[in-house]
Amino acid sequence: MKFTVQQIAEYLHGSVDGDPGVEVNTFCKIEEGQQGGLTFLANPKYEHYLYETKASAALVNESFKPSQEIKLTLIRVPDAYAALASLMQLANSFTQKQESGVDKLAFVDPSVKLPEDCYMGAFAYIGKNVQIAKGCRIYPHAYIGDNAKIGENCIIYPHVTIYHDCEIGNRCIIHAGSVIGADGFGFAPEADGYHKIPQLGNAVLEDDVEIGANTCIDRAAMGSTKIGKGTKLDNLIQVAHNCTVGQHTVMAAQVGMAGSSHVGDWCMFGGQVGLSGHIKIGNKVSLAGQTGIMSDIEDGSQLLGSPGMPVREAFRSIAMMKRLPEMSKRLDKLEKLIEKLSSK
Amino acid sequence: MKFTVQQIAEYLHGSVDGDPGVEVNTFCKIEEGQQGGLTFLANPKYEHYLYETKASAALVNESFKPSQEIKLTLIRVPDAYAALASLMQLANSFTQKQESGVDKLAFVDPSVKLPEDCYMGAFAYIGKNVQIAKGCRIYPHAYIGDNAKIGENCIIYPHVTIYHDCEIGNRCIIHAGSVIGADGFGFAPEADGYHKIPQLGNAVLEDDVEIGANTCIDRAAMGSTKIGKGTKLDNLIQVAHNCTVGQHTVMAAQVGMAGSSHVGDWCMFGGQVGLSGHIKIGNKVSLAGQTGIMSDIEDGSQLLGSPGMPVREAFRSIAMMKRLPEMSKRLDKLEKLIEKLSSK
Amino acid sequence: MKFTVQQIAEYLHGSVDGDPGVEVNTFCKIEEGQQGGLTFLANPKYEHYLYETKASAALVNESFKPSQEIKLTLIRVPDAYAALASLMQLANSFTQKQESGVDKLAFVDPSVKLPEDCYMGAFAYIGKNVQIAKGCRIYPHAYIGDNAKIGENCIIYPHVTIYHDCEIGNRCIIHAGSVIGADGFGFAPEADGYHKIPQLGNAVLEDDVEIGANTCIDRAAMGSTKIGKGTKLDNLIQVAHNCTVGQHTVMAAQVGMAGSSHVGDWCMFGGQVGLSGHIKIGNKVSLAGQTGIMSDIEDGSQLLGSPGMPVREAFRSIAMMKRLPEMSKRLDKLEKLIEKLSSK
Repeated sequence: MKFTVQQIAEYLHGSVDGDPGVEVNTFCKIEEGQQGGLTFLANPKYEHYLYETKASAALVNESFKPSQEIKLTLIRVPDAYAALASLMQLANSFTQKQESGVDKLAFVDPSVKLPEDCYMGAFAYIGKNVQIAKGCRIYPHAYIGDNAKIGENCIIYPHVTIYHDCEIGNRCIIHAGSVIGADGFGFAPEADGYHKIPQLGNAVLEDDVEIGANTCIDRAAMGSTKIGKGTKLDNLIQVAHNCTVGQHTVMAAQVGMAGSSHVGDWCMFGGQVGLSGHIKIGNKVSLAGQTGIMSDIEDGSQLLGSPGMPVREAFRSIAMMKRLPEMSKRLDKLEKLIEKLSSK
Repeated sequence: MKFTVQQIAEYLHGSVDGDPGVEVNTFCKIEEGQQGGLTFLANPKYEHYLYETKASAALVNESFKPSQEIKLTLIRVPDAYAALASLMQLANSFTQKQESGVDKLAFVDPSVKLPEDCYMGAFAYIGKNVQIAKGCRIYPHAYIGDNAKIGENCIIYPHVTIYHDCEIGNRCIIHAGSVIGADGFGFAPEADGYHKIPQLGNAVLEDDVEIGANTCIDRAAMGSTKIGKGTKLDNLIQVAHNCTVGQHTVMAAQVGMAGSSHVGDWCMFGGQVGLSGHIKIGNKVSLAGQTGIMSDIEDGSQLLGSPGMPVREAFRSIAMMKRLPEMSKRLDKLEKLIEKLSSK
Repeated sequence: MKFTVQQIAEYLHGSVDGDPGVEVNTFCKIEEGQQGGLTFLANPKYEHYLYETKASAALVNESFKPSQEIKLTLIRVPDAYAALASLMQLANSFTQKQESGVDKLAFVDPSVKLPEDCYMGAFAYIGKNVQIAKGCRIYPHAYIGDNAKIGENCIIYPHVTIYHDCEIGNRCIIHAGSVIGADGFGFAPEADGYHKIPQLGNAVLEDDVEIGANTCIDRAAMGSTKIGKGTKLDNLIQVAHNCTVGQHTVMAAQVGMAGSSHVGDWCMFGGQVGLSGHIKIGNKVSLAGQTGIMSDIEDGSQLLGSPGMPVREAFRSIAMMKRLPEMSKRLDKLEKLIEKLSSK
């Protein structure tokens, strides 16, 4: 499909800088621009590509002021990244194939009441008394344990395991290999070894949660491990038993939360962040990649390092660390000077 | 089911402080207490909740001395956490459904001799000459490769992969998505690229091992990668080829052990700990979360940081790091003073 | 099967030190030597085992000079580790069972043209219009999404998920539970929450790539996430959307690459390394375990620490850190001395 830049600008309520008749038929990254491609500029780090890209048009922020001559047509919108999301969703809705129906190789327990509109692939397994709302797409090899509840319009990709009694909200997406509701890591140490503490709670995902691939969200020992509405977790993340994560929080891959730790709303964690157990992270907290946190953190904090320090302080300490050998030499020199002065 | 506090205290050989006739019918966390709930106090950090919880009764250590007035009934036992484990196991045995039989959608190779008492779910795959002892529960989508051996009363959850020739002891639990016996990461570098070193050994789990979700234990290049009796590994852990882990060691999520490293008995590792290859960690070693270890470690060490330092030393260094900018200023000042003194 | 040391030396074009008639029938590690075992010495750290091992023969580098009397027979070759790889490949080719044919419990979409020579296990799923070249072995529970392409002689282990439209080169090996082509982590923040950016690109593995267990390689937002020819990734690794990895690069377990970061050829990363997004790592870069990188890195760099520093500098800073308490005391002392001197 082809669209003119004019058509796209109208759809986005944006304005055109340049030839509005230019046609585009695909999306492309700014550093891999091609004719007929629509690209975007959201990260200023990539601005220099804009002056050399072969793309035919680019989405930019309204406020963007080019520092050089531009060859392609610009579409100005309030937020270039949000506009891109909206256009790509539109494109996706045109091209995405929507499987439907229950494959004859799926296993669905007779106790399950199937919604009218759903897809269940070959080798999908739906256990006893599972409740599935309409519009769900359950891919091949997905496993949904007994008594689990799945909300409307969820997508459960291959090899996802949802343990018994867990609850998934509406419009959730769970990528391949993720495990929702495995036993929390609870053992009582005794002289002859560790005795298992049965994990009698469950795991609950609220509406609009997206979980990446091979991520693990353990069930609670008692009560629920909870992921709040609109929160997005990337791949290979560990959420231990009895943790709670608030709303609209995003965590990059390989983050680990130890048991009974709590994260607020609108937080942003970089990859490989680690949280100790039994701590509370406030709202709008930003943690850089690999940061380690061992105690409660106030709303709005921006931390880096292990243990985490305020970003400015952390960078200062890092810079200082590099100067340590020099500081040590200055100390040696001072000691000698003083010795000399003292002996005068 | 309801029980009186008196009945529970008798089962646990504990004593009652308060009304022994109070009835409880569920477990609850102390900060989420509810009427009819039995809670527990094991971590002193949570003591303050005891004075306001709505729970009806609480398990506490014999030695516990309340610092305020208590409204609920206490059950005093030698070890509150161990008592909780024992009670929850009892509760679990009442409620847990025990599937049995081989589902007609399971694949079991004709060479496999099925034990009388077992469960194999739909889409479970049991390869050639696999030996499975009695009482095992093999969930849907589990894969057990040729010639593997599974001991008595194991639980193998969905999407577990056990590669050919691996051995699992008695009473082991392996959570969803874990991979036992994938090829170790062994390649010989040559001018044209890396040549694969076939991994001809296997992976062995001794009795009473529990493996979390999406954890990987690679097979040995030759010989065996071994996890000792009673050891518990959490989710998303990496155990590389030819590693050995001793008995009764616990590792939190996302720990990584590089090839041919060895860990002793009764160790405790926090999350995201990393070990270099070809090193030896003694017994009863405790490593805080995110600690990195590059050399052999003595029995009983307690380390933190990357590279790991004794805990006290690590905290002192961390505190010092924050003082570095100040130390640098003091150094500047001293230099000026000395210059002044010297020029007198 | 038994071979004489003479036969093995001839196969490897090596020379024999000691009795060439000694027979061996298995491989063994040097520290677990046994009669009839062929071992090897590649890592000098293990040399002392050579003088006490019970193995019957050992592969050593041509240049190796024993520092003590040797009891077993040596086979001298230019590169002991490469020779081992070659011998083990030979042994593996004798013993490895080669399943073939399409199991009647596999699901293969009618649109798929099967190659003459392939294996597809029970519960394998091959979607619409998938192209599979000859010689592939697709294990039980593997999932290959619509329109994916798989090259010749690939091995796809159980529970691997290959999302739609992804491309796998020739002779690739993908271990159990890995996920190729899940959605990249792309969301546009708006006032009401994060809006999903559909991930319309794919993931591409070039020839001779090996991927460990439970590793995740996300599909690109647009264009392709690419893993170059001959590159080997270990277990539990995260490669985010739009990343590229060059040729013949090796990464140990639990490495994480954030979005749009690029790694060159012949790099070596230790375990748990983390890379920020939108950065470029040159060729032949070596990063120690747990290193964190936040900016572009030049060819040939050898870094350690978080943030990464040149190895020598990093070790010096680490040593200095331990001396900080002492430096602080010296500073205190100097200040007092100067005060005394100044007041004279």
